[in-house]
Amino acid sequence: MLDRSAKGVFVIAPTPFLPGGALDLDSTDRMTDAFIAAGASGMTILGVMGEAPKLTEAESLTFVDRVLKRVKGRIPVVVGASAPGFAQMKAISRGSMDLGAAGIMVSPAPGLKGDEAVVSYIAQAMDVVDGPFVLQDYPQLTGITMTAAMIARMAQDQRMVMLKAEDWPGLDKLTAVRKLEAEGKMPRVAILGGVGGQFLPEELARGADGIMTGYAYPEMLVKVCQLMGAGRRDAAQDLFDLHLPLIRTEVQPGLGLAIRKYVLKKRGIIAHDVLRAPGPKMSAETAGEVDYLMGRLERAEARLAA
Amino acid sequence: MLDRSAKGVFVIAPTPFLPGGALDLDSTDRMTDAFIAAGASGMTILGVMGEAPKLTEAESLTFVDRVLKRVKGRIPVVVGASAPGFAQMKAISRGSMDLGAAGIMVSPAPGLKGDEAVVSYIAQAMDVVDGPFVLQDYPQLTGITMTAAMIARMAQDQRMVMLKAEDWPGLDKLTAVRKLEAEGKMPRVAILGGVGGQFLPEELARGADGIMTGYAYPEMLVKVCQLMGAGRRDAAQDLFDLHLPLIRTEVQPGLGLAIRKYVLKKRGIIAHDVLRAPGPKMSAETAGEVDYLMGRLERAEARLAA
Amino acid sequence: MLDRSAKGVFVIAPTPFLPGGALDLDSTDRMTDAFIAAGASGMTILGVMGEAPKLTEAESLTFVDRVLKRVKGRIPVVVGASAPGFAQMKAISRGSMDLGAAGIMVSPAPGLKGDEAVVSYIAQAMDVVDGPFVLQDYPQLTGITMTAAMIARMAQDQRMVMLKAEDWPGLDKLTAVRKLEAEGKMPRVAILGGVGGQFLPEELARGADGIMTGYAYPEMLVKVCQLMGAGRRDAAQDLFDLHLPLIRTEVQPGLGLAIRKYVLKKRGIIAHDVLRAPGPKMSAETAGEVDYLMGRLERAEARLAA
Amino acid sequence: MLDRSAKGVFVIAPTPFLPGGALDLDSTDRMTDAFIAAGASGMTILGVMGEAPKLTEAESLTFVDRVLKRVKGRIPVVVGASAPGFAQMKAISRGSMDLGAAGIMVSPAPGLKGDEAVVSYIAQAMDVVDGPFVLQDYPQLTGITMTAAMIARMAQDQRMVMLKAEDWPGLDKLTAVRKLEAEGKMPRVAILGGVGGQFLPEELARGADGIMTGYAYPEMLVKVCQLMGAGRRDAAQDLFDLHLPLIRTEVQPGLGLAIRKYVLKKRGIIAHDVLRAPGPKMSAETAGEVDYLMGRLERAEARLAA
Repeated sequence: MLDRSAKGVFVIAPTPFLPGGALDLDSTDRMTDAFIAAGASGMTILGVMGEAPKLTEAESLTFVDRVLKRVKGRIPVVVGASAPGFAQMKAISRGSMDLGAAGIMVSPAPGLKGDEAVVSYIAQAMDVVDGPFVLQDYPQLTGITMTAAMIARMAQDQRMVMLKAEDWPGLDKLTAVRKLEAEGKMPRVAILGGVGGQFLPEELARGADGIMTGYAYPEMLVKVCQLMGAGRRDAAQDLFDLHLPLIRTEVQPGLGLAIRKYVLKKRGIIAHDVLRAPGPKMSAETAGEVDYLMGRLERAEARLAA
Repeated sequence: MLDRSAKGVFVIAPTPFLPGGALDLDSTDRMTDAFIAAGASGMTILGVMGEAPKLTEAESLTFVDRVLKRVKGRIPVVVGASAPGFAQMKAISRGSMDLGAAGIMVSPAPGLKGDEAVVSYIAQAMDVVDGPFVLQDYPQLTGITMTAAMIARMAQDQRMVMLKAEDWPGLDKLTAVRKLEAEGKMPRVAILGGVGGQFLPEELARGADGIMTGYAYPEMLVKVCQLMGAGRRDAAQDLFDLHLPLIRTEVQPGLGLAIRKYVLKKRGIIAHDVLRAPGPKMSAETAGEVDYLMGRLERAEARLAA
Repeated sequence: MLDRSAKGVFVIAPTPFLPGGALDLDSTDRMTDAFIAAGASGMTILGVMGEAPKLTEAESLTFVDRVLKRVKGRIPVVVGASAPGFAQMKAISRGSMDLGAAGIMVSPAPGLKGDEAVVSYIAQAMDVVDGPFVLQDYPQLTGITMTAAMIARMAQDQRMVMLKAEDWPGLDKLTAVRKLEAEGKMPRVAILGGVGGQFLPEELARGADGIMTGYAYPEMLVKVCQLMGAGRRDAAQDLFDLHLPLIRTEVQPGLGLAIRKYVLKKRGIIAHDVLRAPGPKMSAETAGEVDYLMGRLERAEARLAA
Repeated sequence: MLDRSAKGVFVIAPTPFLPGGALDLDSTDRMTDAFIAAGASGMTILGVMGEAPKLTEAESLTFVDRVLKRVKGRIPVVVGASAPGFAQMKAISRGSMDLGAAGIMVSPAPGLKGDEAVVSYIAQAMDVVDGPFVLQDYPQLTGITMTAAMIARMAQDQRMVMLKAEDWPGLDKLTAVRKLEAEGKMPRVAILGGVGGQFLPEELARGADGIMTGYAYPEMLVKVCQLMGAGRRDAAQDLFDLHLPLIRTEVQPGLGLAIRKYVLKKRGIIAHDVLRAPGPKMSAETAGEVDYLMGRLERAEARLAA
């Protein structure tokens, strides 16, 4: 079970599909193994990047089950359960916990008005989930602002074990939350960064315990966390900077998941870069740009290793 | 099966719940009977006002089945199938058609960018549904604009049988669509108005074939359609005006469905005015205002009838 | 100078233009006289409905000056000064106060994130204006939510004399503010309703001191306030209901101002129904609908008077 | 006068302020000189990043005049003139052209509905401006989508000389526009990229003629354009990659301009990093991060040069 001491890299997994659109469970196994081999401390599935809203409930639980069976308890798995109604949130979260998930991630529903409504919604969601709760702060998607003071209030509930910090910009908020903790105004929670990995060194320097994101080279994220943990800021930044051109390409809204699956396929981690419809298509030009950046990246990493 | 000659009042049905939150199937039967008794030409279920996004898939099909069994083919039933992914849209729409639905209603997905993307999305959705298709034009909800010219393009597909016109303001668009038809630039489709019934007389005068809405006194909508059809504009408006204060109260965003269920309960049509969480709560003050307006309405209708 | 005892009908004035687009100062005089003759307790100029964002600064102050000169202190005039930057807010508000305005109305700037940011913005705006301050709560326009608790905080500043309550739905918030006042948690402020007049009887019953809106028949608003003040709720509602069809037509987003100017012109209050570009155009069909409703209204008022 | 052969780096200039908030005209001169010395092909002033909406009209024209007097015709200066109404757009654009501006930049007004409305708005804006017209495609700010097909229609007007391509992602649209030109479906226009410089190499490879952005090291942008022009893609990317960490920091929404002014001040280009209120404040932590990245950048550039 996830608790407030969680840290490291939680890889957000896409949901692999076969060319016809069905779940690709073989790729699911291979991907799970690859992420663990890359040094992941955890995995997160059925998030936005997992195309969760495009799965039927049965598919969702089939996928959760497959991942958990493959993981076999080696690392904790967080399952996204944001939904328009609490009935579905309950179905997915309880179902996943029964299958062995370590925690459930939820973001405030779009359309909530005012701080109180958001705090109240999350309080209700924690009752619905009734297990280790990861609060996802992703205003670019939800349109909902959560200030450090609001997060402090939510964290009074012992079930809130982790904040996934995905605001953009969000570094000052991260600092503000850690400050509230230091002042005794809220319990210390695990904080994992996000926004595609764009600010990993800064997030860690500001006090994040790691990152939860789906960048297609998770081993870099792991290494940067290690280097930062060892106080080697320059070395961490050197490695990070090599990946930033590809990260920048991957975080483009709408297009990002298609690029991520393309890279994962090229790396042999999943068999197909299929997205469920409706969804964006990656152009040949974009593919060429990604190929170019991957080539540069591999050469640069080789140089850095040498 | 729904076709382009459809007309009259299609009542948008809420989904009745028991106090614990489960489907209230007895109320479902009673409500179905009441709407048919009120003169409904059709029913629409699992729309936004049916809290469709808060139902599990199994509940959705259970509800569809119950309504269809009760209707027994007396009137056509349209099922809402808008969904984030085509997989769920297919599941709901094919499942509902198999159970006997007359048509499927879909609105463009929020976030589509530019006219072409919207037209293309609807073309794909028609392939997914592959049955009588009702295009829902509801920009207040979706953020998507559909101009008359775009609707004309979509209507080239024979499967698009009906436009549910819910833009606000939308009367000039209704006129523009009818003009394109008259000029031979698009086939004639059925058009039903909406926006809670607020503009029913004007919609009919502009060429709508009826209305699809969930106002809690559907018999008034039926009567206004009849009076307008008989050329009795003043009489139609006289009756309509009596209901406008309550319509105005019912169309308040966010709060409307709670009020609608409250009225339906007071009228004995459903047993409970329960909404699924998360959702708004109606205050005692609002209830008092609704009570007052219902009292005035009944006295006024009695006077008008006398 | 406006203070917390303000009440009655503050008519929101449009800005009249000549066919070429220049300010129509003769109509400005006539309109000012007409509103005072209709029983207005105050006037509000340079609001959204005054096309303020389409005026140059010089035009704004010319218009303010003309209205104030015509009013000659007979009623207080509130000037809207919302602006993207405090520099312009200061220019308009200080300029208007120097010319004799009674107060300044400001809404939170779109894009503010979280309750604290909104409260802080308004605190700064009160310093900028540094005169009697009217807080405009108009989330449909600004996207900003202000809860009763936030309003209570803002009202601690003595300069905040009035709340223009334009949320939709907003009646429960109005009740909540009055409750906070009754509990001693905030000073009593003047509250005027809005939303085009759609809920005038309810607003007054919930504790509003009047209404600030631009409905083209302000004498009805005045009469309803008087009847409600005299405890004649049914009579108030009877009169109000006669106007509701036209109010409903006038509050259509985007189109409303064109309709309002059309009615004011037909009533002889302004000479031209010109809007500044870019702006909506009213169709002949809409004009016909408005003509029809105005005809019905006049006949009904004659009947009611008889 | 700007024409369709424009290319290179058009630096978007901030508006420098003194600590009290007044225009800092000395810094304006120094900044103008610095940008020309950095190799700018043009300058763009009074854009969003120039805090244009926070200036009074008089200040706007004072600033335009100062820049133009300092430039003395050495490079073309584009002036942003987007405004809620055409009256102000005309005042700023005609005023600026009279003072010697080379062109006027306008984006579609937020709130336009549907492709036709956008195309029509821009047609009207071109009549208002009636000079060399730069179409700004910045949907993150305006919420308006412009497809390649829409841009092709707008470009039929000879006055539209340039597209500032700021969609995100926008590379495929850039390719699509160039394809329409190649197919003879629209005249060739100048295209400058944007989005803070994040995709400069890709934009140029896709056919952009340069970039219009305000990144605080414009000499890098110039150098990358030169290297790409010389076919040295790898060298261009090497240089670009050194700056990407800082670019990434600078493009954070809301915070970006504060960071940009901070860097320009540290580089000695402007005297103060003052923003007009209301506006974001940069934290000490962010300043420290920027300092760190600037230090790394300078060392890396020294290494690259060596």
